[in-house]
Amino acid sequence: MSLDKLITRIDALKNPSVAGLDPKLEYIPHFIREESFLKYGHTLEAAADAIFSFNRALIDALYDVVPAIKPQAAYYEMYGWAGVRTMEKTIRYAQEKGMYVITDGKRNDIGATMTAYAAAHLGKSDVDGIELEAFGADALTVNGFLGTDGITPLLEVCEKFDKGIFVLVKTSNPSSGELQDQKIGNKTVYEVMGEMCEHWGELQRGQYGYSAVGAVVGATYPEQLTELRKKMPHTMFLVPGYGAQGGGAKGIAGAFDINGRGAIVNSSRAIMCAWKKEEGCVETAFAEAARREAIRMRDDITSYL
Amino acid sequence: MSLDKLITRIDALKNPSVAGLDPKLEYIPHFIREESFLKYGHTLEAAADAIFSFNRALIDALYDVVPAIKPQAAYYEMYGWAGVRTMEKTIRYAQEKGMYVITDGKRNDIGATMTAYAAAHLGKSDVDGIELEAFGADALTVNGFLGTDGITPLLEVCEKFDKGIFVLVKTSNPSSGELQDQKIGNKTVYEVMGEMCEHWGELQRGQYGYSAVGAVVGATYPEQLTELRKKMPHTMFLVPGYGAQGGGAKGIAGAFDINGRGAIVNSSRAIMCAWKKEEGCVETAFAEAARREAIRMRDDITSYL
Repeated sequence: MSLDKLITRIDALKNPSVAGLDPKLEYIPHFIREESFLKYGHTLEAAADAIFSFNRALIDALYDVVPAIKPQAAYYEMYGWAGVRTMEKTIRYAQEKGMYVITDGKRNDIGATMTAYAAAHLGKSDVDGIELEAFGADALTVNGFLGTDGITPLLEVCEKFDKGIFVLVKTSNPSSGELQDQKIGNKTVYEVMGEMCEHWGELQRGQYGYSAVGAVVGATYPEQLTELRKKMPHTMFLVPGYGAQGGGAKGIAGAFDINGRGAIVNSSRAIMCAWKKEEGCVETAFAEAARREAIRMRDDITSYL
Repeated sequence: MSLDKLITRIDALKNPSVAGLDPKLEYIPHFIREESFLKYGHTLEAAADAIFSFNRALIDALYDVVPAIKPQAAYYEMYGWAGVRTMEKTIRYAQEKGMYVITDGKRNDIGATMTAYAAAHLGKSDVDGIELEAFGADALTVNGFLGTDGITPLLEVCEKFDKGIFVLVKTSNPSSGELQDQKIGNKTVYEVMGEMCEHWGELQRGQYGYSAVGAVVGATYPEQLTELRKKMPHTMFLVPGYGAQGGGAKGIAGAFDINGRGAIVNSSRAIMCAWKKEEGCVETAFAEAARREAIRMRDDITSYL
C-alpha cells in the first residue's frame, strides 16, 4: 500500500535509522557463543542459536529507540536452514516489539518466481487452501535488473498486505559505478532505475507522499543522494553505508525532504559491535553499548535535518 | 576453478540439459501431499516434506539421464525455514547420485555480504574454527548489478572449492529488455555484462576453454544467444526459458559451440508436471513421466547440435 507504517514509526521515535542485523558469529560476545556450543556442539545450529540470543537482546535494547531492523539474509543463510530459521524468529520477535522489519535479500527473478519470493518474504503461501506466513517481513529489498515483470508480483503483495519494497538504485560499494553510473542516452543507469521506481510506485502512495516502492541509495555517494531526492519525490530511500562503510551524517542530509522525511539510514556493524569499540565495555554490556551507539547515531543524523 | 565438472557430466550423459526443481505444491501428486499432511497437518513443514519426497523420486528417475538439477531458491523460501531445509536436503541427495547442482538464487550484494552468500551456497562457514558446509551447491546464479566487488568473493570460493557461478546477462522474461537492452555507448547493457563475465572468468579457465563464470541467457531471445556465443567464447551459458516459457530447441542451437558444448538448457515445469500432461498417466507414475520428458527434451536439443 505504502511505507506509511514505517514513516509513522520513524516519526514516533524521531529517529530515521534502522539497525542492520548482519550477525557474523565473531560479532557475538563469547559468553553467548559458549552457551550455544554447550547446547549444540560446534554446529550450524549452535551458530544459529547464538545469533538468535544476540539478536533478541539487541532488539530488547533498541526497540524503543530505533524504529526498524534490517536482517541481511546472507548472514543467516551462511548458517544453513538453522540460520534461516533464526532469521524468521528474529523477524517475528522484532515485530512483537513493534519494530518494522526490512528483510535485506535483494531478491530478483522472472515474474512467476518473484510471485514465490513475494509470498515467501512479504505475503502468504498457500498450503492446500490454507494461507500461511513464511517469513512475514514488512518490506524486502529487491534488484530491478529484470524489469517490470520481476516487480509486479511484489506490488500485488504490497497492495494486499500493506507491505513495501526497496529497489536497488545506487549501491554503496566501491564498484557500484561499473554498471550503475554508465550512461543510457543522457541518463545514468541508476537514474533510469530511479525513474522505474517512481513509476512502479505510482498507484500506491501514502499520506506522506511516499509510495510502497522505496529505493536503496548508498550513503557513500552524497551527490547522487541529493540529486535523486529531487528526481524521485515519491520514493523513500533506504541508505546503507553510514559509519563503517564511510558515509557521514552530513552527506546523508540530502537524502531527506524539507520535512525531514523520505529516508531511513542503516547502521549494522557499528551497532552490533559497539561493545568491542566502547572503551572499558565488558562483553555482558553489549546490548547497552548497542543502545548508546544507536542513540549517538540518531542524534548525529537528526542534527543535520 | 572452472565448470569442467559440469561439462564432463554433460559429456558423459550426452545431455546438455538441467532439470529445474521449482516445486510448487500444486505440481506434486495428491498421494504424496496427503501423506505429508497426515504427518504434519496443513503446515509449512508438511509442504516442505512433500516437496522433498517429490524431489527425491524425480532425482531417482533422472540422475542417469540428466546431468544436473537447478533448485530455484524462491520455491523453497516460500515454505519458510522448513522449505529451505528441503532445498539443502535436495542438494545433498542429488549430489550423492552424482548430479551437479546449480542453486538458482540470483544473489547479489556488496563485497562483505557476498562473502557470506558465497560461504552459504558454495563454500564453508566458520563456526569457532570449524569449517562447515551450509548448502554446498556446485554453482550459484548471481546478479552482477553491483559490479566487480560483488563478484570477487565468489571467485575466491570458486577457486578454493572448485565451484562455479552463472551471472545474469540476458534474462528470459518479457520485460528483460527494459534495462538489459538499453544502449551504453554502442553496446547494450547485456553486452556490457557479458564482457564483465569474460573478464571475471579470465583466471579460472578449464580444459574445455570455459571458465568458472557462466552466464544466464534466456532461450526466449535466440538472436542474442547466437550473438553472445560469439562474443563470450569462454563463458558457458545457462539457458532458461525452454518449453513452458516459449523457447524452442532450434533457437537454442546458437548457444552451443562447434563441439556442441558451452551451454546447458533448463526445463522445470515440463519435467515436474509431465505426469499432468501425458495422456493416460496415473499420478503414481509421475517420476517415469518426468524421465520420459527429460529424454524427449535431450533428444530434441541434441538433434540440432
